[in-house]
Amino acid sequence: MIKRYPNGTPYQQKLALDQTIKFKSKTANENVIYGNRGMSLEEEINLSNKYYLETNVAVIHKKPLPIQIVNVDYPKRSAAVIKEAYFKQASTTDYNGVYRGRYIDFEAKETRNRASFPLSNFHDHQIKHMKACIRQGGICFALVKFVAHQEIYLLPATVLFTYWDRRFSERKSIPYTTIQEQGFLIDYQINPRLPYLQAVDLLIENLNSVN
Amino acid sequence: MIKRYPNGTPYQQKLALDQTIKFKSKTANENVIYGNRGMSLEEEINLSNKYYLETNVAVIHKKPLPIQIVNVDYPKRSAAVIKEAYFKQASTTDYNGVYRGRYIDFEAKETRNRASFPLSNFHDHQIKHMKACIRQGGICFALVKFVAHQEIYLLPATVLFTYWDRRFSERKSIPYTTIQEQGFLIDYQINPRLPYLQAVDLLIENLNSVN
Repeated sequence: MIKRYPNGTPYQQKLALDQTIKFKSKTANENVIYGNRGMSLEEEINLSNKYYLETNVAVIHKKPLPIQIVNVDYPKRSAAVIKEAYFKQASTTDYNGVYRGRYIDFEAKETRNRASFPLSNFHDHQIKHMKACIRQGGICFALVKFVAHQEIYLLPATVLFTYWDRRFSERKSIPYTTIQEQGFLIDYQINPRLPYLQAVDLLIENLNSVN
Repeated sequence: MIKRYPNGTPYQQKLALDQTIKFKSKTANENVIYGNRGMSLEEEINLSNKYYLETNVAVIHKKPLPIQIVNVDYPKRSAAVIKEAYFKQASTTDYNGVYRGRYIDFEAKETRNRASFPLSNFHDHQIKHMKACIRQGGICFALVKFVAHQEIYLLPATVLFTYWDRRFSERKSIPYTTIQEQGFLIDYQINPRLPYLQAVDLLIENLNSVN
Protein backbone atom coordinates (compact mmCIF):
# COMPACT_ATOMS: atom_id res chain seq x y z
CA MET A 1 0.00 0.00 0.00
CA ILE A 2 1.32 3.41 -0.92
CA LYS A 3 0.70 5.93 1.84
CA ARG A 4 -0.01 9.49 0.83
CA TYR A 5 -0.79 12.83 2.36
CA PRO A 6 -4.41 13.92 2.17
CA ASN A 7 -3.69 17.49 1.21
CA GLY A 8 -2.57 18.07 -2.27
CA THR A 9 -1.08 16.51 -5.33
CA PRO A 10 1.28 19.42 -6.08
CA TYR A 11 2.99 19.04 -2.71
CA GLN A 12 3.42 15.34 -3.18
CA GLN A 13 4.69 15.82 -6.71
CA LYS A 14 7.13 18.51 -5.67
CA LEU A 15 8.40 16.30 -2.90
CA ALA A 16 8.86 13.36 -5.19
CA LEU A 17 10.78 15.59 -7.58
CA ASP A 18 13.12 16.81 -4.84
CA GLN A 19 13.76 13.28 -3.83
CA THR A 20 14.48 12.15 -7.32
CA ILE A 21 17.22 14.77 -7.43
CA LYS A 22 18.59 14.03 -4.00
CA PHE A 23 18.23 10.28 -3.93
CA LYS A 24 18.86 9.13 -7.44
CA SER A 25 19.60 5.60 -6.40
CA LYS A 26 16.10 5.01 -5.00
CA THR A 27 13.37 3.43 -7.06
CA ALA A 28 10.17 5.35 -7.80
CA ASN A 29 8.20 3.30 -5.32
CA GLU A 30 10.71 3.79 -2.50
CA ASN A 31 10.60 7.51 -3.14
CA VAL A 32 6.87 7.67 -2.58
CA ILE A 33 7.06 5.81 0.72
CA TYR A 34 9.94 8.01 1.79
CA GLY A 35 7.74 10.95 0.90
CA ASN A 36 5.69 10.32 4.03
CA ARG A 37 8.34 12.09 6.03
CA GLY A 38 5.99 12.73 8.96
CA MET A 39 6.03 9.06 9.94
CA SER A 40 9.29 8.92 11.79
CA LEU A 41 8.58 11.78 14.20
CA GLU A 42 5.00 10.53 14.57
CA GLU A 43 6.21 7.05 15.46
CA GLU A 44 8.66 8.45 17.98
CA ILE A 45 5.89 10.46 19.62
CA ASN A 46 3.43 7.56 19.59
CA LEU A 47 6.02 5.30 21.25
CA SER A 48 6.72 7.92 23.89
CA ASN A 49 2.99 8.43 24.54
CA LYS A 50 2.57 4.68 24.92
CA TYR A 51 5.33 4.65 27.52
CA TYR A 52 3.83 7.64 29.34
CA LEU A 53 0.42 5.91 29.35
CA GLU A 54 1.73 2.57 30.61
CA THR A 55 3.74 4.19 33.39
CA ASN A 56 0.80 6.37 34.52
CA VAL A 57 2.61 9.59 33.69
CA ALA A 58 0.20 11.07 31.14
CA VAL A 59 -2.67 10.18 28.83
CA ILE A 60 -1.90 11.65 25.42
CA HIS A 61 -3.18 10.24 22.13
CA LYS A 62 -2.92 11.07 18.47
CA LYS A 63 -6.33 11.84 17.01
CA PRO A 64 -7.54 9.76 14.07
CA LEU A 65 -7.52 11.39 10.62
CA PRO A 66 -10.91 12.95 9.94
CA ILE A 67 -12.57 11.18 7.04
CA GLN A 68 -15.76 11.84 5.11
CA ILE A 69 -17.39 8.49 4.48
CA VAL A 70 -19.53 8.34 1.34
CA ASN A 71 -20.20 4.68 0.75
CA VAL A 72 -20.05 1.66 3.05
CA ASP A 73 -20.51 -1.91 1.95
CA TYR A 74 -22.05 -4.05 4.65
CA PRO A 75 -21.83 -7.71 3.75
CA LYS A 76 -23.71 -10.05 6.06
CA ARG A 77 -21.73 -11.74 8.83
CA SER A 78 -18.58 -9.74 8.19
CA ALA A 79 -17.15 -6.34 8.97
CA ALA A 80 -18.35 -3.23 7.20
CA VAL A 81 -16.08 -2.14 4.35
CA ILE A 82 -15.74 1.54 3.53
CA LYS A 83 -15.76 1.67 -0.27
CA GLU A 84 -15.61 5.42 -0.82
CA ALA A 85 -14.30 8.06 1.55
CA TYR A 86 -12.30 11.26 1.44
CA PHE A 87 -9.74 12.90 3.68
CA LYS A 88 -11.08 15.97 5.45
CA GLN A 89 -9.06 18.84 6.83
CA ALA A 90 -8.65 18.50 10.58
CA SER A 91 -10.07 21.36 12.65
CA THR A 92 -7.65 20.73 15.50
CA THR A 93 -4.08 19.68 16.15
CA ASP A 94 -2.95 16.05 16.03
CA TYR A 95 -2.27 15.31 19.70
CA ASN A 96 -4.00 16.08 22.96
CA GLY A 97 -4.43 14.70 26.42
CA VAL A 98 -3.90 15.28 30.11
CA TYR A 99 -0.70 15.57 32.19
CA ARG A 100 -0.38 16.76 35.80
CA GLY A 101 -4.02 17.89 35.66
CA ARG A 102 -3.23 20.11 32.67
CA TYR A 103 -4.73 19.96 29.20
CA ILE A 104 -1.95 19.29 26.68
CA ASP A 105 -2.36 20.03 22.97
CA PHE A 106 0.29 19.97 20.27
CA GLU A 107 1.23 19.50 16.68
CA ALA A 108 4.29 17.65 15.37
CA LYS A 109 6.15 18.77 12.24
CA GLU A 110 9.38 17.95 10.45
CA THR A 111 11.49 19.97 8.09
CA ARG A 112 14.56 19.24 5.97
CA ASN A 113 15.52 22.91 6.04
CA ARG A 114 18.67 23.75 7.98
CA ALA A 115 18.35 27.45 8.70
CA SER A 116 14.67 27.92 9.47
CA PHE A 117 11.29 26.27 10.00
CA PRO A 118 8.78 27.21 7.26
CA LEU A 119 5.43 28.39 8.64
CA SER A 120 3.73 26.74 5.66
CA ASN A 121 3.98 23.56 7.73
CA PHE A 122 1.11 24.88 9.83
CA HIS A 123 -2.48 25.58 8.87
CA ASP A 124 -4.55 28.53 9.98
CA HIS A 125 -7.11 26.31 11.77
CA GLN A 126 -4.34 24.64 13.80
CA ILE A 127 -3.06 28.00 15.03
CA LYS A 128 -6.63 29.17 15.78
CA HIS A 129 -7.26 25.96 17.72
CA MET A 130 -4.08 26.38 19.78
CA LYS A 131 -4.94 30.02 20.52
CA ALA A 132 -8.41 28.96 21.71
CA CYS A 133 -6.94 26.21 23.92
CA ILE A 134 -4.49 28.62 25.53
CA ARG A 135 -7.37 31.00 26.31
CA GLN A 136 -8.95 28.12 28.28
CA GLY A 137 -5.75 27.46 30.21
CA GLY A 138 -4.39 24.62 28.10
CA ILE A 139 -0.71 24.04 27.34
CA CYS A 140 0.07 24.18 23.63
CA PHE A 141 3.23 23.74 21.65
CA ALA A 142 4.78 22.30 18.53
CA LEU A 143 7.28 19.47 18.40
CA VAL A 144 9.57 20.52 15.59
CA LYS A 145 12.12 18.18 14.05
CA PHE A 146 15.06 19.44 12.04
CA VAL A 147 15.91 16.34 10.08
CA ALA A 148 19.21 17.76 8.82
CA HIS A 149 20.38 18.51 12.38
CA GLN A 150 18.68 15.41 13.83
CA GLU A 151 17.26 17.65 16.53
CA ILE A 152 13.76 17.89 17.99
CA TYR A 153 12.60 21.00 19.80
CA LEU A 154 9.53 21.75 21.83
CA LEU A 155 8.49 25.20 20.64
CA PRO A 156 5.99 26.99 22.92
CA ALA A 157 2.87 28.03 20.99
CA THR A 158 3.37 31.67 21.98
CA VAL A 159 6.64 31.82 20.02
CA LEU A 160 4.92 30.19 17.06
CA PHE A 161 2.04 32.73 17.24
CA THR A 162 4.46 35.67 17.19
CA TYR A 163 5.96 34.53 13.89
CA TRP A 164 2.64 33.32 12.49
CA ASP A 165 0.88 36.65 13.03
CA ARG A 166 3.67 38.48 11.17
CA ARG A 167 4.07 35.97 8.34
CA PHE A 168 2.65 38.30 5.67
CA SER A 169 4.42 41.46 6.83
CA GLU A 170 7.73 39.88 7.81
CA ARG A 171 9.30 36.47 7.25
CA LYS A 172 7.49 33.23 6.39
CA SER A 173 9.62 31.02 8.61
CA ILE A 174 11.02 30.80 12.12
CA PRO A 175 14.84 31.02 12.19
CA TYR A 176 16.63 27.94 13.50
CA THR A 177 18.49 30.18 15.95
CA THR A 178 15.19 31.44 17.42
CA ILE A 179 14.02 27.88 17.93
CA GLN A 180 17.36 27.03 19.57
CA GLU A 181 16.98 30.02 21.92
CA GLN A 182 13.26 29.96 22.72
CA GLY A 183 12.50 26.27 22.28
CA PHE A 184 13.54 23.30 24.38
CA LEU A 185 15.83 20.70 22.82
CA ILE A 186 14.50 17.18 23.48
CA ASP A 187 17.34 14.70 23.92
CA TYR A 188 16.63 11.14 22.83
CA GLN A 189 16.37 8.60 25.61
CA ILE A 190 15.73 4.89 25.74
CA ASN A 191 12.34 5.25 27.41
CA PRO A 192 10.47 7.34 26.60
CA ARG A 193 12.28 7.86 23.34
CA LEU A 194 11.27 11.53 23.26
CA PRO A 195 10.94 12.76 26.86
CA TYR A 196 9.08 15.88 25.77
CA LEU A 197 7.09 16.10 29.01
CA GLN A 198 10.30 17.24 30.73
CA ALA A 199 10.06 20.39 28.63
CA VAL A 200 6.34 20.62 29.45
CA ASP A 201 7.35 20.63 33.13
CA LEU A 202 9.34 23.79 32.43
CA LEU A 203 6.35 25.36 30.66
CA ILE A 204 4.13 24.57 33.67
CA GLU A 205 6.75 26.06 36.05
CA ASN A 206 6.81 29.24 33.96
CA LEU A 207 3.00 29.44 34.05
CA ASN A 208 2.95 28.91 37.81
CA SER A 209 5.60 31.59 38.41
CA VAL A 210 3.65 34.08 36.25
CA ASN A 211 0.33 33.44 38.04
CA MET B 1 -26.67 6.82 1.67
CA ILE B 2 -27.70 4.44 4.39
CA LYS B 3 -25.73 5.06 7.55
CA ARG B 4 -24.80 2.07 9.63
CA TYR B 5 -23.00 1.28 12.84
CA PRO B 6 -19.56 -0.20 12.42
CA ASN B 7 -20.08 -2.94 14.99
CA GLY B 8 -22.45 -5.66 14.09
CA THR B 9 -25.24 -6.68 11.78
CA PRO B 10 -27.31 -8.46 14.48
CA TYR B 11 -27.61 -5.27 16.53
CA GLN B 12 -28.78 -3.27 13.56
CA GLN B 13 -31.22 -5.99 12.55
CA LYS B 14 -32.68 -6.26 16.04
CA LEU B 15 -33.14 -2.53 16.18
CA ALA B 16 -34.86 -2.41 12.82
CA LEU B 17 -37.20 -5.14 14.01
CA ASP B 18 -38.14 -3.24 17.17
CA GLN B 19 -38.85 -0.20 15.13
CA THR B 20 -40.98 -2.06 12.67
CA ILE B 21 -43.16 -3.07 15.58
CA LYS B 22 -43.25 0.34 17.17
CA PHE B 23 -43.44 2.50 14.10
CA LYS B 24 -45.47 0.57 11.61
CA SER B 25 -46.23 3.60 9.52
CA LYS B 26 -42.59 4.24 8.64
CA THR B 27 -41.06 2.93 5.45
CA ALA B 28 -38.14 0.53 5.56
CA ASN B 29 -35.72 3.21 4.51
CA GLU B 30 -36.84 5.65 7.17
CA ASN B 31 -36.46 2.92 9.74
CA VAL B 32 -32.82 2.40 8.90
CA ILE B 33 -31.98 6.10 9.17
CA TYR B 34 -33.89 6.26 12.42
CA GLY B 35 -31.85 3.30 13.55
CA ASN B 36 -28.83 5.54 13.92
CA ARG B 37 -30.16 6.60 17.27
CA GLY B 38 -26.80 7.93 18.43
CA MET B 39 -27.08 10.85 16.00
CA SER B 40 -29.48 13.00 17.89
CA LEU B 41 -27.54 13.18 21.15
CA GLU B 42 -24.31 13.54 19.19
CA GLU B 43 -25.74 16.42 17.17
CA GLU B 44 -26.98 18.11 20.33
CA ILE B 45 -23.53 17.85 21.89
CA ASN B 46 -21.77 19.01 18.72
CA LEU B 47 -24.02 22.06 18.52
CA SER B 48 -23.38 22.85 22.18
CA ASN B 49 -19.63 22.46 21.72
CA LYS B 50 -19.76 24.78 18.71
CA TYR B 51 -21.50 27.38 20.84
CA TYR B 52 -19.00 26.94 23.68
CA LEU B 53 -16.13 27.32 21.20
CA GLU B 54 -17.53 30.43 19.52
CA THR B 55 -18.23 32.14 22.84
CA ASN B 56 -14.75 31.33 24.21
CA VAL B 57 -16.15 29.17 27.00
CA ALA B 58 -14.45 25.87 26.20
CA VAL B 59 -12.66 23.98 23.43
CA ILE B 60 -14.22 20.53 23.20
CA HIS B 61 -14.31 18.42 20.05
CA LYS B 62 -15.59 15.03 19.02
CA LYS B 63 -12.75 12.83 17.84
CA PRO B 64 -12.93 11.40 14.34
CA LEU B 65 -13.79 7.71 13.98
CA PRO B 66 -10.60 5.68 13.85
CA ILE B 67 -10.30 4.01 10.48
CA GLN B 68 -7.85 1.50 9.04
CA ILE B 69 -7.11 2.58 5.50
CA VAL B 70 -6.16 -0.26 3.17
CA ASN B 71 -6.37 1.19 -0.31
CA VAL B 72 -6.30 4.75 -1.60
CA ASP B 73 -6.83 5.77 -5.19
CA TYR B 74 -4.93 8.90 -6.08
CA PRO B 75 -6.07 10.20 -9.45
CA LYS B 76 -4.00 13.07 -10.84
CA ARG B 77 -5.30 16.61 -10.24
CA SER B 78 -8.06 15.52 -7.89
CA ALA B 79 -8.51 14.52 -4.30
CA ALA B 80 -7.41 11.14 -2.99
CA VAL B 81 -10.24 8.61 -2.77
CA ILE B 82 -10.16 5.96 -0.07
CA LYS B 83 -11.33 2.79 -1.83
CA GLU B 84 -11.00 0.30 0.99
CA ALA B 85 -11.01 0.97 4.72
CA TYR B 86 -12.36 -0.56 7.90
CA PHE B 87 -13.72 0.81 11.14
CA LYS B 88 -11.36 0.31 14.06
CA GLN B 89 -12.27 0.18 17.71
CA ALA B 90 -11.49 3.49 19.39
CA SER B 91 -8.99 3.35 22.24
CA THR B 92 -10.43 6.42 23.92
CA THR B 93 -13.75 8.17 24.51
CA ASP B 94 -15.46 10.28 21.86
CA TYR B 95 -15.06 13.77 23.27
CA ASN B 96 -12.27 15.69 24.93
CA GLY B 97 -11.01 19.21 25.37
CA VAL B 98 -10.24 21.99 27.81
CA TYR B 99 -12.50 24.06 30.07
CA ARG B 100 -11.43 26.38 32.90
CA GLY B 101 -7.90 25.02 32.60
CA ARG B 102 -9.20 21.49 33.20
CA TYR B 103 -8.93 18.49 30.90
CA ILE B 104 -12.44 17.31 30.01
CA ASP B 105 -13.12 13.81 28.68
CA PHE B 106 -16.45 12.11 28.15
CA GLU B 107 -18.54 9.60 26.31
CA ALA B 108 -22.15 10.10 25.14
CA LYS B 109 -24.67 7.25 25.11
CA GLU B 110 -28.39 6.81 24.60
CA THR B 111 -30.77 4.14 25.77
CA ARG B 112 -34.42 3.34 25.11
CA ASN B 113 -34.65 1.54 28.45
CA ARG B 114 -36.83 3.20 31.06
CA ALA B 115 -35.66 1.65 34.34
CA SER B 116 -31.89 1.39 33.91
CA PHE B 117 -28.90 2.15 31.76
CA PRO B 118 -27.24 -1.03 30.40
CA LEU B 119 -23.49 -1.15 30.96
CA SER B 120 -23.13 -2.95 27.63
CA ASN B 121 -23.26 0.54 26.13
CA PHE B 122 -19.68 1.03 27.30
CA HIS B 123 -16.53 -0.77 26.25
CA ASP B 124 -13.72 -1.87 28.52
CA HIS B 125 -11.16 0.38 26.79
CA GLN B 126 -13.39 3.44 27.30
CA ILE B 127 -13.60 2.78 31.04
CA LYS B 128 -9.84 2.12 31.21
CA HIS B 129 -9.19 5.36 29.37
CA MET B 130 -11.42 7.36 31.73
CA LYS B 131 -9.76 5.80 34.78
CA ALA B 132 -6.33 6.74 33.39
CA CYS B 133 -7.47 10.33 32.70
CA ILE B 134 -8.83 10.72 36.22
CA ARG B 135 -5.47 9.54 37.61
CA GLN B 136 -3.87 12.47 35.74
CA GLY B 137 -6.35 14.96 37.17
CA GLY B 138 -8.78 15.07 34.27
CA ILE B 139 -12.57 15.41 34.59
CA CYS B 140 -14.43 12.44 33.14
CA PHE B 141 -18.11 11.63 32.83
CA ALA B 142 -20.78 10.17 30.62
CA LEU B 143 -23.64 12.07 29.06
CA VAL B 144 -26.50 9.60 29.27
CA LYS B 145 -29.76 10.08 27.42
CA PHE B 146 -32.92 8.26 28.39
CA VAL B 147 -34.89 8.54 25.18
CA ALA B 148 -38.12 7.31 26.79
CA HIS B 149 -37.94 9.98 29.49
CA GLN B 150 -36.44 12.59 27.15
CA GLU B 151 -33.84 13.28 29.83
CA ILE B 152 -30.10 13.73 29.63
CA TYR B 153 -27.89 13.28 32.66
CA LEU B 154 -24.25 13.98 33.31
CA LEU B 155 -23.07 10.92 35.19
CA PRO B 156 -19.70 11.33 36.96
CA ALA B 157 -17.24 8.66 35.87
CA THR B 158 -16.73 7.54 39.48
CA VAL B 159 -20.39 6.40 39.68
CA LEU B 160 -20.01 4.62 36.37
CA PHE B 161 -16.83 2.85 37.60
CA THR B 162 -18.60 1.59 40.73
CA TYR B 163 -21.23 -0.21 38.68
CA TRP B 164 -18.79 -1.23 35.94
CA ASP B 165 -16.40 -2.94 38.37
CA ARG B 166 -19.28 -5.01 39.84
CA ARG B 167 -20.97 -5.86 36.55
CA PHE B 168 -20.08 -9.56 36.69
CA SER B 169 -20.84 -10.05 40.39
CA GLU B 170 -23.89 -7.80 40.63
CA ARG B 171 -26.13 -6.10 38.07
CA LYS B 172 -25.26 -5.31 34.46
CA SER B 173 -26.92 -1.92 34.43
CA ILE B 174 -27.16 1.31 36.41
CA PRO B 175 -30.65 1.93 37.82
CA TYR B 176 -32.46 5.00 36.50
CA THR B 177 -33.02 6.07 40.13
CA THR B 178 -29.25 5.99 40.81
CA ILE B 179 -28.61 8.18 37.79
CA GLN B 180 -31.35 10.57 38.97
CA GLU B 181 -29.74 10.75 42.42
CA GLN B 182 -26.03 10.77 41.59
CA GLY B 183 -26.11 12.34 38.14
CA PHE B 184 -26.92 15.89 37.08
CA LEU B 185 -30.00 16.47 34.92
CA ILE B 186 -29.17 18.73 31.97
CA ASP B 187 -32.11 20.95 31.07
CA TYR B 188 -32.42 21.93 27.43
CA GLN B 189 -31.73 25.57 26.63
CA ILE B 190 -31.72 27.62 23.48
CA ASN B 191 -27.96 28.19 23.50
CA PRO B 192 -26.11 26.05 24.22
CA ARG B 193 -28.76 23.43 23.63
CA LEU B 194 -27.20 21.14 26.24
CA PRO B 195 -25.54 23.32 28.90
CA TYR B 196 -23.60 20.38 30.31
CA LEU B 197 -20.67 22.52 31.43
CA GLN B 198 -22.92 23.85 34.23
CA ALA B 199 -22.82 20.35 35.69
CA VAL B 200 -19.06 20.25 35.09
CA ASP B 201 -18.81 23.41 37.22
CA LEU B 202 -20.36 21.42 40.07
CA LEU B 203 -17.85 18.59 39.53
CA ILE B 204 -14.97 21.10 39.66
CA GLU B 205 -16.39 22.65 42.85
CA ASN B 206 -16.56 19.19 44.44
CA LEU B 207 -12.95 18.49 43.42
CA ASN B 208 -11.79 21.83 44.83
CA SER B 209 -13.59 21.28 48.14
CA VAL B 210 -12.00 17.81 48.49
CA ASN B 211 -8.45 19.03 47.75
